[in-house]
Amino acid sequence: MPTNAMALSQRARSQRTLQVALGERSYPIHIGPGLLGDPAWITPHLAGRQVMIVTNETIAPRYLELVRRGLPADLEVHELVLPDGEATKTLACVSRIWDALLEAGFNRRCTLIALGGGVIGDMVGFAAASYQRGVAFIQVPTTLLAQVDSSVGGKTGVNHPLGKNMIGAFWQPRAVLIDTATLATLPAAEFSAGLAEVIKYGLIRDADFLAWLEEHMAALRALDPEALAWAIERSCQIKAEIVAADETEQGVRALLNLGHTFGHAIEAHQGYGSWLHGEAVGVGMLMAADLSRRLGWLGDAEIKRTQAIIDAAGLPLAAPADMGVEEFLVRMRLDKKNIDQSIRLVLMRALGDAEVYDDTPAGLLEACIQDYPRK
Amino acid sequence: MPTNAMALSQRARSQRTLQVALGERSYPIHIGPGLLGDPAWITPHLAGRQVMIVTNETIAPRYLELVRRGLPADLEVHELVLPDGEATKTLACVSRIWDALLEAGFNRRCTLIALGGGVIGDMVGFAAASYQRGVAFIQVPTTLLAQVDSSVGGKTGVNHPLGKNMIGAFWQPRAVLIDTATLATLPAAEFSAGLAEVIKYGLIRDADFLAWLEEHMAALRALDPEALAWAIERSCQIKAEIVAADETEQGVRALLNLGHTFGHAIEAHQGYGSWLHGEAVGVGMLMAADLSRRLGWLGDAEIKRTQAIIDAAGLPLAAPADMGVEEFLVRMRLDKKNIDQSIRLVLMRALGDAEVYDDTPAGLLEACIQDYPRK
Repeated sequence: MPTNAMALSQRARSQRTLQVALGERSYPIHIGPGLLGDPAWITPHLAGRQVMIVTNETIAPRYLELVRRGLPADLEVHELVLPDGEATKTLACVSRIWDALLEAGFNRRCTLIALGGGVIGDMVGFAAASYQRGVAFIQVPTTLLAQVDSSVGGKTGVNHPLGKNMIGAFWQPRAVLIDTATLATLPAAEFSAGLAEVIKYGLIRDADFLAWLEEHMAALRALDPEALAWAIERSCQIKAEIVAADETEQGVRALLNLGHTFGHAIEAHQGYGSWLHGEAVGVGMLMAADLSRRLGWLGDAEIKRTQAIIDAAGLPLAAPADMGVEEFLVRMRLDKKNIDQSIRLVLMRALGDAEVYDDTPAGLLEACIQDYPRK
Repeated sequence: MPTNAMALSQRARSQRTLQVALGERSYPIHIGPGLLGDPAWITPHLAGRQVMIVTNETIAPRYLELVRRGLPADLEVHELVLPDGEATKTLACVSRIWDALLEAGFNRRCTLIALGGGVIGDMVGFAAASYQRGVAFIQVPTTLLAQVDSSVGGKTGVNHPLGKNMIGAFWQPRAVLIDTATLATLPAAEFSAGLAEVIKYGLIRDADFLAWLEEHMAALRALDPEALAWAIERSCQIKAEIVAADETEQGVRALLNLGHTFGHAIEAHQGYGSWLHGEAVGVGMLMAADLSRRLGWLGDAEIKRTQAIIDAAGLPLAAPADMGVEEFLVRMRLDKKNIDQSIRLVLMRALGDAEVYDDTPAGLLEACIQDYPRK
């Protein structure tokens, strides 16, 4: 077999494609190693000749040239390199994208490529949603968290000093390209943060996947390619199913927020970026598990399993020492899921079976927050 | 007949409702005198208990109290009064709306009420589109221009130093309430600017309506209630039909931009607010008519009729003296309708029959701009 054909055949074996089924707005998620330099994956999703690759200072030296080489030569390609970090996920930073698009004279048929983690994806998605009332964009996530969560499903936006992701839009990408090879350069703490979202899919929807994760956590942290491929594929499958059933979070999509109401409060209180999103969500899922136990839904054995897998993923177990009950509640009352005055939470009936719950007695929630371990 | 029943019956006679047919996003346009103080028109469209009325310094003393009185007493109602004028249609001003919503602790089930002209409607619409990824809003337009054009159809957004309406979203209101009584306090120049858009509907789609307008222009400028009611109703009908056929301007909706490509160039070059939008669109429609003549589509008689009706509406006929060919072209190249490098224009095959045209020879366009009268 000639080398090219062999390479293609290997690619075909290790590459897989899922579909997010949203009618006219449907799009593919391509998963595999080495997708970035290959024009086959991006070209079919371009809206026109004008393309802007938006990335950050950390990712640019690693992958920008590779993505650029994977684009056809006859395009008008611009690049924009933003600062890195959750603290940059602001309207001011999105404005820099709009300025760059207008300075380059980009019209409505342009395509933005979001190359980076969740912060870049959320900002570029919102920039695309609101540039000339909506242009095309492609997600190229380079962190585990973005690959299994934020790049899929069309949630875009920025933080506000008074709340996380408060300004934004539902805006679906034309495609998601997940090059699993990029995880080789991801810092260990960020990899662990991504695992929090992988574990979340098991906790909310798939007890078998949770058991598989318990067994393969060491292999995942050692970047075993087959374990990684399955963890990402199964996570994206669950996310794509839920998003297809409820694009704008009127119902079942809220399940994806397990641990996020507590977690967002931690992130906002500590200042975005001092805790990684996945670290805060990990603690948030443990707090949600504890509250589920107080409601009589989970037993001690389930609490122990949840703690053990969060711990095995290399994530913190304790909440910040300087957050009292009121510091949590004031942020949680602002959560987007809330209806009028009540705090809406995602809790677990069993491991692998979460539900949206509006009727937590206030005293139970306060006791849960009060008693939860601090460090 | 008892007084209340008589009032209801009169209201029923003078009040009319059109529907913008957009599937799940369909909404009514209520037109009539005295709608503002009457709870019947707003209450059914509220998403929850939290309501923010956003208006400007000019409109607040006239109508804010009236709108507030027309809301049920058990709501949580906040007010935000912004500065007035096209120059305020910026991201900074929309940010003030987001700040106010977050400071008030508004959740996803809130409703924004846009009380004012096109600037308020566009900004509040974009604020609603992007607050917590989209909340409800109601348009209460108080200028003729907003009543016949900008409040219907879901185009929202703000200006950027490099182009008009460059940042925004398609986001439909829950309802449009047109209280024709508000036109009594509208300055004459702004009324004329609104007439430019009314004339536009005749020019693009309805030669009979154009002829009716030629006959009734004096009555309209004298605020004759019956003439006004029909002009607004027919304008909203045509706009609603076109929007229903093409919500996101993939095709026929672009016809609504007759005169706007030239007009936006004038507004952007002169600095937003120094020319009223309708004044710039009036000149733009005359330039589009002249270009249509150069293509052999219109004759001299049609040009004279177009000039005469724009003149009769009290609108300027000449373009700004300090704008040469390049000053027009540099702005027109940024227009959202353009595909890649060509300038897309709306031109007239006949009066009442416009079409989107991509193939204007560059020399013809330049000669049209060059020769057009300046003042």
